[in-house]
Amino acid sequence: MSVTTPVGFLASGVAAGLRKSGKPDVALVYNEGPLHVAAAVFTSNRVIAAPILWTRQTAADGRLDAVIINSGGANACTGLDGFDDSQTTAERVVEALKKSGREVAETDVAVCSTGLIGVRLDMKRLLKGVDDAVHALSQAGGSDAAKAIMTTDKVPKCVAVRREPWSIGGIAKGAGMLAPGLATMIVILTTDAVLDERRAKGALEEAVRGTFNRIDSDGCMSTNDIVLLMASGASGVTPDPDEFEDALDAACASLARALVADAEGASHDIAITVQGATTEEAAEAVARAISRSSLFKAAIFGNDPNWGRILAAAGTVPVDVAPFDPLLLDVWINGVQVCRAQAAHEDRSLVDLKPREVSVVVDLHAGEASATLWTNDLTHDYVEENSAYST
Amino acid sequence: MSVTTPVGFLASGVAAGLRKSGKPDVALVYNEGPLHVAAAVFTSNRVIAAPILWTRQTAADGRLDAVIINSGGANACTGLDGFDDSQTTAERVVEALKKSGREVAETDVAVCSTGLIGVRLDMKRLLKGVDDAVHALSQAGGSDAAKAIMTTDKVPKCVAVRREPWSIGGIAKGAGMLAPGLATMIVILTTDAVLDERRAKGALEEAVRGTFNRIDSDGCMSTNDIVLLMASGASGVTPDPDEFEDALDAACASLARALVADAEGASHDIAITVQGATTEEAAEAVARAISRSSLFKAAIFGNDPNWGRILAAAGTVPVDVAPFDPLLLDVWINGVQVCRAQAAHEDRSLVDLKPREVSVVVDLHAGEASATLWTNDLTHDYVEENSAYST
Repeated sequence: MSVTTPVGFLASGVAAGLRKSGKPDVALVYNEGPLHVAAAVFTSNRVIAAPILWTRQTAADGRLDAVIINSGGANACTGLDGFDDSQTTAERVVEALKKSGREVAETDVAVCSTGLIGVRLDMKRLLKGVDDAVHALSQAGGSDAAKAIMTTDKVPKCVAVRREPWSIGGIAKGAGMLAPGLATMIVILTTDAVLDERRAKGALEEAVRGTFNRIDSDGCMSTNDIVLLMASGASGVTPDPDEFEDALDAACASLARALVADAEGASHDIAITVQGATTEEAAEAVARAISRSSLFKAAIFGNDPNWGRILAAAGTVPVDVAPFDPLLLDVWINGVQVCRAQAAHEDRSLVDLKPREVSVVVDLHAGEASATLWTNDLTHDYVEENSAYST
Repeated sequence: MSVTTPVGFLASGVAAGLRKSGKPDVALVYNEGPLHVAAAVFTSNRVIAAPILWTRQTAADGRLDAVIINSGGANACTGLDGFDDSQTTAERVVEALKKSGREVAETDVAVCSTGLIGVRLDMKRLLKGVDDAVHALSQAGGSDAAKAIMTTDKVPKCVAVRREPWSIGGIAKGAGMLAPGLATMIVILTTDAVLDERRAKGALEEAVRGTFNRIDSDGCMSTNDIVLLMASGASGVTPDPDEFEDALDAACASLARALVADAEGASHDIAITVQGATTEEAAEAVARAISRSSLFKAAIFGNDPNWGRILAAAGTVPVDVAPFDPLLLDVWINGVQVCRAQAAHEDRSLVDLKPREVSVVVDLHAGEASATLWTNDLTHDYVEENSAYST
């Protein structure tokens, strides 16, 4: 179950020597068609990596034939030379595919990179890796591709959602710098459903909004994020739009949940639900403020149901963003109502925070809307991994 | 050097048993006059503690005679009962002062509290502490008061700025939850200069803007913050307005720097200067985004000059908040220009991050304005202290 579950896709993952560990670091996903529809969502960071600049252009017309992804270097903050490197990579994909009898244009090749910022890629190794990746393409290569895009990820992340006679497959990487718009994530989704560009784009944006943009592991937004959907149309079936959107949403939700579960050094996955909001946007803003409180996150690491820190974080959201009366706030942690109307209620010692999954519910008593956002706790392992990443 | 440096002020600090450690936990600062001018700045959090609600009302008319401060409990998220507790505390100050021959109105008594959120104060102990604090008032009591307002602070924080024949004194507490608007800070400033309410308010707001609101230790905003200025006029001298503002700014800057130096678990104090901005607000917004990047802060803890994380954080600031071209960004860490025009420049191994004080300079190349913000690194000790605070 991965990007090669839908018919019409080949994939591979090879080791090119970009990662010091010698682990696989170049992945390729190739769409055999007959359709070559594509849609993509990118990081909203203003500092964006060269491959994102490249792929924004190549994906703009709604057509992609292949995506090449390397780990072992983000190719971000590398100037014009970095952009040349992304272009050279795409050109090499075209050349290598041509040698194997497949004709694609370089403007239909997406490029993704992940790893350390500010360092040029070792192009000699990468280009050799491109050749090897083309050579290794197969209908069973999806899981190899999933492994080759890992950085600090502990496990590869794959998904398949089957709706006979069509299906959706996906692979994802991401384990830190997880914040909306998007996270340090690279997600490649494939489908053999028949889609047009407009439908692909609409369905992808809607699915991302409620899934990848609702995980916020550490509030840090990356320079290299992309979620890419490619449709081969090989099933020959045009799905019901709602059914396709449901399936795509399920695939994205599954991968998003897997990203949170693998977040760097985390010991808890925390679902923050804010209900009783005037709008979904207001609910999300309050949930995001809570998800970014280092004090709250450290308390959860310590298995401490410190609900005062939840209220203190909620209170930082401006009133025009989320109108509510602070005196009415209720809070539940793992089902125990520790706070009612901004004061202590049930005994906080009833809260069992030993399980990895934690549920926080805040009721604003201001309206009917709600939103759920996933985050992680702040742990010693997070500090350790991120204080020693580039050195 | 503290709140009793200016003439006309008495202070004390006593142990009432609110802190489990038995350390001093009730402080009193009393203004003998002849003037009783006061100005205050409060947290901008919408979830505010009972003593803040009380003191917002009592300070509104620009007059205060005394301020009573307890550690060992924030009296936040304690509902209407908590507000009653603040009022009862003020009433007891009035009673006890009356017994010692000093007449004040309860509406001229400020109340401050600091400690854990969501727990009622032990009023029996606190009221006994109020009596003891009144009894202990003295012209040498400023340093005792500074000690009694500490929570996780490792050192008391005092300041005196002398401009003969008048002076400014101050005490402060704060060691975590340090973020603007304000931090978990309580700051009491005194002066024997002759001031009116308008001048006191204007000078205090301006000084806070450039000092306490430019420290952001962990991005977490408190429910109990207050900076209070009381003027006795006992020197009989009306200072030049600019000279007074300079002196007040110096006092606030000194205390703000001391708060950063004592931040929970920090191993580095980081000055982030953003220059070349279109406005000071834009510079501050970029500096604040950097100061809130857990990845950047963890890297500094690891003595890792990971400038990519600085750019990634700067890139999250919306263009309407801080217009700049991301491709032009320059970065210096401790004087070494590690990044020029968004690409690697000087060798990052030249950066020595062993000293506690770290300087980060980012040039946006968009204008003439600049701002400096202080923050701390993200360390194991921060996680440790904050995962075990309330349990």
